[in-house]
Amino acid sequence: MVHAENIAQKIQGAELVYVVASRPERAKKAADELGAKKWTTDPDVVFEDDSIDAVILVTPTSTHYDLIKKAAKHNKQIFVDKPITETVEQAKEVSALINETGVHCMVGFMRRFDPAYLEAKKRIEAGDIGKPLYFKGMSRDPGSPPEAVIKNSGGIFLDLCIHDFDIARFLMGSEVKSVTSLGSVQVHPFMHTYQDVDQAISFLEFESGAAADIEGSRNSTYGYDIRGEVVGTDGAMQIGTIRKENVTLLNAKGSTYENIPVFQSKFQEAFLIEMNHFIKCIQNNEKPLVNEVDGLASLQVAAAATEAFLQKSKITIA
Amino acid sequence: MVHAENIAQKIQGAELVYVVASRPERAKKAADELGAKKWTTDPDVVFEDDSIDAVILVTPTSTHYDLIKKAAKHNKQIFVDKPITETVEQAKEVSALINETGVHCMVGFMRRFDPAYLEAKKRIEAGDIGKPLYFKGMSRDPGSPPEAVIKNSGGIFLDLCIHDFDIARFLMGSEVKSVTSLGSVQVHPFMHTYQDVDQAISFLEFESGAAADIEGSRNSTYGYDIRGEVVGTDGAMQIGTIRKENVTLLNAKGSTYENIPVFQSKFQEAFLIEMNHFIKCIQNNEKPLVNEVDGLASLQVAAAATEAFLQKSKITIA
Amino acid sequence: MVHAENIAQKIQGAELVYVVASRPERAKKAADELGAKKWTTDPDVVFEDDSIDAVILVTPTSTHYDLIKKAAKHNKQIFVDKPITETVEQAKEVSALINETGVHCMVGFMRRFDPAYLEAKKRIEAGDIGKPLYFKGMSRDPGSPPEAVIKNSGGIFLDLCIHDFDIARFLMGSEVKSVTSLGSVQVHPFMHTYQDVDQAISFLEFESGAAADIEGSRNSTYGYDIRGEVVGTDGAMQIGTIRKENVTLLNAKGSTYENIPVFQSKFQEAFLIEMNHFIKCIQNNEKPLVNEVDGLASLQVAAAATEAFLQKSKITIA
Amino acid sequence: MVHAENIAQKIQGAELVYVVASRPERAKKAADELGAKKWTTDPDVVFEDDSIDAVILVTPTSTHYDLIKKAAKHNKQIFVDKPITETVEQAKEVSALINETGVHCMVGFMRRFDPAYLEAKKRIEAGDIGKPLYFKGMSRDPGSPPEAVIKNSGGIFLDLCIHDFDIARFLMGSEVKSVTSLGSVQVHPFMHTYQDVDQAISFLEFESGAAADIEGSRNSTYGYDIRGEVVGTDGAMQIGTIRKENVTLLNAKGSTYENIPVFQSKFQEAFLIEMNHFIKCIQNNEKPLVNEVDGLASLQVAAAATEAFLQKSKITIA
Repeated sequence: MVHAENIAQKIQGAELVYVVASRPERAKKAADELGAKKWTTDPDVVFEDDSIDAVILVTPTSTHYDLIKKAAKHNKQIFVDKPITETVEQAKEVSALINETGVHCMVGFMRRFDPAYLEAKKRIEAGDIGKPLYFKGMSRDPGSPPEAVIKNSGGIFLDLCIHDFDIARFLMGSEVKSVTSLGSVQVHPFMHTYQDVDQAISFLEFESGAAADIEGSRNSTYGYDIRGEVVGTDGAMQIGTIRKENVTLLNAKGSTYENIPVFQSKFQEAFLIEMNHFIKCIQNNEKPLVNEVDGLASLQVAAAATEAFLQKSKITIA
Repeated sequence: MVHAENIAQKIQGAELVYVVASRPERAKKAADELGAKKWTTDPDVVFEDDSIDAVILVTPTSTHYDLIKKAAKHNKQIFVDKPITETVEQAKEVSALINETGVHCMVGFMRRFDPAYLEAKKRIEAGDIGKPLYFKGMSRDPGSPPEAVIKNSGGIFLDLCIHDFDIARFLMGSEVKSVTSLGSVQVHPFMHTYQDVDQAISFLEFESGAAADIEGSRNSTYGYDIRGEVVGTDGAMQIGTIRKENVTLLNAKGSTYENIPVFQSKFQEAFLIEMNHFIKCIQNNEKPLVNEVDGLASLQVAAAATEAFLQKSKITIA
Repeated sequence: MVHAENIAQKIQGAELVYVVASRPERAKKAADELGAKKWTTDPDVVFEDDSIDAVILVTPTSTHYDLIKKAAKHNKQIFVDKPITETVEQAKEVSALINETGVHCMVGFMRRFDPAYLEAKKRIEAGDIGKPLYFKGMSRDPGSPPEAVIKNSGGIFLDLCIHDFDIARFLMGSEVKSVTSLGSVQVHPFMHTYQDVDQAISFLEFESGAAADIEGSRNSTYGYDIRGEVVGTDGAMQIGTIRKENVTLLNAKGSTYENIPVFQSKFQEAFLIEMNHFIKCIQNNEKPLVNEVDGLASLQVAAAATEAFLQKSKITIA
Repeated sequence: MVHAENIAQKIQGAELVYVVASRPERAKKAADELGAKKWTTDPDVVFEDDSIDAVILVTPTSTHYDLIKKAAKHNKQIFVDKPITETVEQAKEVSALINETGVHCMVGFMRRFDPAYLEAKKRIEAGDIGKPLYFKGMSRDPGSPPEAVIKNSGGIFLDLCIHDFDIARFLMGSEVKSVTSLGSVQVHPFMHTYQDVDQAISFLEFESGAAADIEGSRNSTYGYDIRGEVVGTDGAMQIGTIRKENVTLLNAKGSTYENIPVFQSKFQEAFLIEMNHFIKCIQNNEKPLVNEVDGLASLQVAAAATEAFLQKSKITIA
C-alpha cells in the first residue's frame, strides 16, 4: 500500500492502473481507495496488457522468481521487494534474463534512499572518516511476523538482516568475502521448528580487509530500532534515530521522547524517494541505482549467513 | 519557489497556471522550470482570469493589503505569507472584506503544520504537561537579510518573532494580553537607522494567566536555530532540532552533527503539508486552520511588541 | 551539610571543628554524624576561638552582614553563601572591611567550579565562538521554598537569578551595564504578598556591547533545570544537562532518561572542587577566584534587576 | 597512579605506606609525589611488613599469580587488577588459597562501581525492562598498547573484552554457558604474530537462555568508547556516554561535543568509589562485592572466548 499510494498520489508522471491481489474484495477495495482504474486477482492480466510499462512486485518472496521472469518476458520494467528471489541460483537466472531482455529491475533496498544513509555515504567518500574499517549494523523489529509468515520467510538472515548486508556493501564500498553467523531463540519458540532464530549476529569480512558485525532481532518491544555505524582510520560515523518526532516530554519521571513504533514511519521519506527514482529511471531508460546486481550480491551474503548459522562455520563467498 | 514547486509537482488536484513576477525574464524562467502554462508581470491578469480559483501571495509585506483586497473582490481563494498586512488597521479591513466576500484566506504560519509542533499541541491537549504555564520560544536566523530588505521588513518583531507569537498562541491555547519587548544591536549597525535590532526578547502575558519569553536573533552564524518549550503544571515539553540529518561524525575532535543551515530545509515537510491543507480547504470549501483571524491576532502581538520596544514600556492588547 | 561533609570527609588538610546551629539538638546530631569535635548554638564561640582559621557561613542571607563583619574582625578566613549580603550598601561595607583586615572572603557561586562551565570559559577564551554576543541563561527550580523562606529571600532575582548573573559576568568577560526585569506569578499566589514572582526574565546589557536574557523559575515540576548558552560572532556554546545518569530506558512509551531531581546532585562535584579551592587558598594565602568583588558585582546586578522589576523600567548600574 | 592517588589523597581511613616499582627512581618519585613514607623495588619487603594491612596489585597479569599467593600467605587483604590471573587453573588455585587463608580479594572490575551501571542494574532488578534477553556490549580503545605489551596481554578477549564479560554477567544476572568468538586485524599487523586481533566480536549464551554480543576494538581513533545495552521482554536500557563535558559547541560546521579521549577520565569516579569500597570492606571484614569468584568466572569466559577464536568453534563452559 505504501508503494501504491506513492504511485497514485505523490509521484508525477506515473499512473497506478492495476491493483493485483489474491483476494478479489481486497483488490477492489484498494483500487477504489487509490483511484486505480482496474483490479484483478490474476497477475497475467497485467503482464499481457500492452499499455502497462512497469510492475511493482511486493509479494511473498517465493513468488518473485516466477513473476520477475514473466515480467521480463513481457518487457515490463520491474520493481521487486527484497530479497530478489529465494535462492542464489534463481537470482542468477533472473539476472541473466533481465540482461537479455534489456528491462530494468530495481530491488527494494529503500535504505539506500534514506537521506541519512546517503549523507553518510557522501561523507565516507569525502574521506571524513578515512578508510572504512568496520561496519556495525542493527535491525530490531518490535516483534515477529506470525508463524505462517516466518515459515516462508527464508529465515532471519534472508528476511531481515539482508537490509544490513546490502547497506554494509554500499557504505563499505566493498563486497563481502566471508560470513559467520550465530543466533538464538529468545522469545518465539516456534522459530525452532524452522531452524530459525529471533536474535542473530553475523560477522562479515570484506574483500577490502574491513569487517562488520550485524545484529538482527525480532524482540524489540520498545520500537523499530535501526542503527548503523562505520569506523574508519580517522574517525567514525553513526547513522539513525529511533525518535518519532522532535518533541521531548519532561515530567517528574524524566525526559521522554517517543520511539518510532512501526516500520513504514521510519522510512516513509525513503520509500517515496525510492519510487520516484524508479519512475525516473524507466522514463529515461536508465539503470536504477539498486538493481539485480545488488539483489544478487546481497542475497549471496544472506544465503551464506544462513548456511554459516546452520553449519556452525565460516562460509566463504565465491 | 517552494510553494510553486509544491503546487506544480507534489500536490494532486491543483495546477500551477500562472507565475507572476515583476521582472519578465524571472517570471518566464520560473514558468518554464515549473511547467506553468503562463507567466505575467501583472497580477491583475490573474485576478481577472475567471479560470483561476486561488492565488498564492508570496510578495513583499507592503503589497499584501492591495493584493488581498483585489483577490477577495475577484473571488479568488487566498494564501498569503505572514504577516497578513503591514498594520493592524489594514488587517482588520481585509478581514472584514474576506468575511463579506466569503473567500478563504490562509496565512503562511507553516510551523502550525510541522509534525513536531502538531505532536506537541496534541500532547498538551491530552494533558501530558498539565495546564500550560510558560512558553519559551526562540528563532535564530543565520544572518540578516540585506539592509534594503530590513528597511521594509517592519522590524524584527513583525518579520521574525511573529512566527513565535503565532505558535505561542496556538500551543498555549490563549490570546496575548500584554507585551514588553527589549533588544539590542549586536552585529549589524545599520539596524540603528531603522530603529530595528538584531537581538530581541519579548515577554508576553496571556489571558489565561500564562506567560512567555520569545527571543529573536539575526546573529546565529552556526545555523538556523528554532526551538520551543512549554512548561506546564505537571511537566514540560521541548520542540525542535537543529540537526540536519541523523548522521553523527566522530573523530579526534569529538562528535559532530551538521546543523540545519537554511530556512527551507527545516520546514520543507511543513510547507508541503501546509499547501496540501490549503488546496483541500478550497476544494471542500472549508475554512483553513490558519486564517485571517490568526493573521490579525498574531500581527496585533507583533505590532504591540514593536511599540513596546520603541516606547520602552509594557503594551496592553485591547 | 554538603559543605560540612566535604570538609569532614573528603578534603585533605582541613578539619571540621565546630558545627554551629540555632537548635542545640540539630548542632549536636550533625557534629556526631560528621565527627566534629564540638558544637554550639553561638557563633561567637567560634569567632573567639583562636584555634579556628576559617568559617563557612551557610546561613540566612539576613545574617551574612553581621557574621562577615565579626569573622573579618576576628581574622577568620570566610566562605559565605551567595548573595554576599542583603543590600549593595552592606556588600560595599563588608568589602571595605575585608580589604582592611586582609582576610579572604570567598562567595559560594559554585557554578564557577563546575567542569562544564570551566570548559566553556576555556573555549570562549580560546576563541572557539569568536567574540561573545549573547548569553542565554536559565535556572528552574522544581518548586518554591515555603512562604516563610520566600519572605526573607530578597526575591527571585537576588535569591535564584544571581547565580546566572554571576556566571554571565564570568562567561561574557564583561560587567553588566543595565538591567530590565519582568515576571509573573504562575503557581504560588503568596508571591504577590512580597512583590515577588515565580517566573522571571531579565534582559542585561554588558559594557562590551553584548546582551543577555536570564530566566528564573520556581515552577519546574520535572526537575532541576539549569542551562546556559553563549552566542558569539563565530559560533555558540550550550552548557548543561538535566540527565541524572547516563542510562536511557526504552520501552513501548519511548526513550526515557531520569532528570536531576534535586539541587545538590547536579553540582555535587562543583561543591567539592569549590571547597577544595577555598581550603587551598587559605593554606597558601591566595585570593580565592570568586571573592567579595564578585559578591558585590553580582549583587549589584541582582539588586538592579529587582528594582527594574518593581519600577517597570530599565535600571542602569553605576 | 590513579589507585595510589585515591588512597593517598581522597580516601579517609587508609594510608599509602609503600610505593613499589621495579625501577627505583620511579618508585621514589611516585612516593614523593604522593607523600608515601616508603618505597621499594622488592614486593617482599611489603609482604613481610606486619604493619601493612592490604596490598593493591596493579602489575602485569603474569605476576598476579605469584603476588596473590604471597599476599594471601602473609595475610594481606588483596586488591588486584583484572584479570585475576593468566589462566583459569591459576585462578582456581589462588581462589582456593584465598578461601583457606580467609583474606579478602577484590578484582578491579571498576565498571561495577560506575553510577550508570549501578543504576542500570537497579532498574533491571526493579523489573523496568522485564526479563533480560540480550546484552550488547562494546569497548573501543583509541589505539593499541605497544607490541611488547600486546605480546604479554593474553589477547584482546582476556585483556579488553573481559570488562564486558564481567559486566554482562552482572547485568544479566546469569552465568555464561557458551562462547563463540571471531575477529580480524584491521590496523595493527603485528597482532598476527601473537594470534591476536584488534577487532573482535563474541557471541555469548547464558544459563538463563539469554544471549549477548560483545565487540572489542583497538581502533577507535575518535576516543574511548564504552557502551552497553540490555534488551528485555518489556523494554531495553542503554548505558554510557562518550561525552567529555556537558558543553556543546555550535558553529558553521555543526554541533560538536568533545569525546572522552582517555581511559581514566571516563571511570574516574568509579575508580574512587571502587577503592572506597575495598577500604571499607577490609575495615569491616566484609567480602568485597567483586571478588575472586567474579575474577574466576569472568576469566573463564575470556579464556573460552580466546579458545573459541583460535579453534573457530563454539566453546562450552563447564
